[in-house]
Amino acid sequence: MYALGTHLLVELKECNPKIISNLKEVQNILINAAKVAEATIIEVAFHEFNPFGISGMVVIAESHLSIHTWPEYGYAAVDIFTCGSVLKPDKAVAYLIKEFQCKNPSVVEVKRGIISPDNKKLPHKINGDEFGNEQEQAATVLSSNHNYS
Amino acid sequence: MYALGTHLLVELKECNPKIISNLKEVQNILINAAKVAEATIIEVAFHEFNPFGISGMVVIAESHLSIHTWPEYGYAAVDIFTCGSVLKPDKAVAYLIKEFQCKNPSVVEVKRGIISPDNKKLPHKINGDEFGNEQEQAATVLSSNHNYS
Repeated sequence: MYALGTHLLVELKECNPKIISNLKEVQNILINAAKVAEATIIEVAFHEFNPFGISGMVVIAESHLSIHTWPEYGYAAVDIFTCGSVLKPDKAVAYLIKEFQCKNPSVVEVKRGIISPDNKKLPHKINGDEFGNEQEQAATVLSSNHNYS
Repeated sequence: MYALGTHLLVELKECNPKIISNLKEVQNILINAAKVAEATIIEVAFHEFNPFGISGMVVIAESHLSIHTWPEYGYAAVDIFTCGSVLKPDKAVAYLIKEFQCKNPSVVEVKRGIISPDNKKLPHKINGDEFGNEQEQAATVLSSNHNYS
């Protein structure tokens, strides 16, 4: 169904512990994953935890990528949340699997923001002039949506 | 089953468009949601998009909270990713629903990092001295895990 966002929940087991415990490497790999997906990077925030484990976020114009690593278990949890139909999050996943030397990956794709009850494709951005009208339309959609719940 | 992380995918439909289009309000509400969950805030990054829509991330010591809003559709997608058993992400969800005046919320809870094939509880942090041993243990777990896949 049509959704405002596509969210990939990426479970990366059996990664190379040395790679996913290295702050610089993890940061570079997630930034490059965003580039591979053809996303526009807006902000990057990474942190290393004591004694080990890395959390990182890449805010993109089309939503975000995040990572949390548990080097002691060879595990990394990655999320790739995108909107629009231009990006290539699947390519980012393949890149991450390769770079983390992950031997046991799995991915769940979740649609986020299925807001049209009649499965109508909705633009994820509209221009400012239409805001008032669109708000009314959205209210109508949401109201009828509510009737289905 | 025991997992390293708990991830709440929070779909907030029929929110008050004025609130979810206000950068300052959305930022304050997500930061307060992290506090309500009793998380330790490490970094905050928020952005407003043209013509409207807000993306924000709150990196916490226990993983992250994120939000993307579509004011034109009264919709906000929130993720609350936590590790450990101390935090109260459910309280954060209730707080967000109230503050965004959301009339149509739904939540999906996903366990992230189920890495023990025999459902053994694993600490999410271990001390540095145990790293070598734990790596071996993890390798064993992952190896046997692999046999089940």
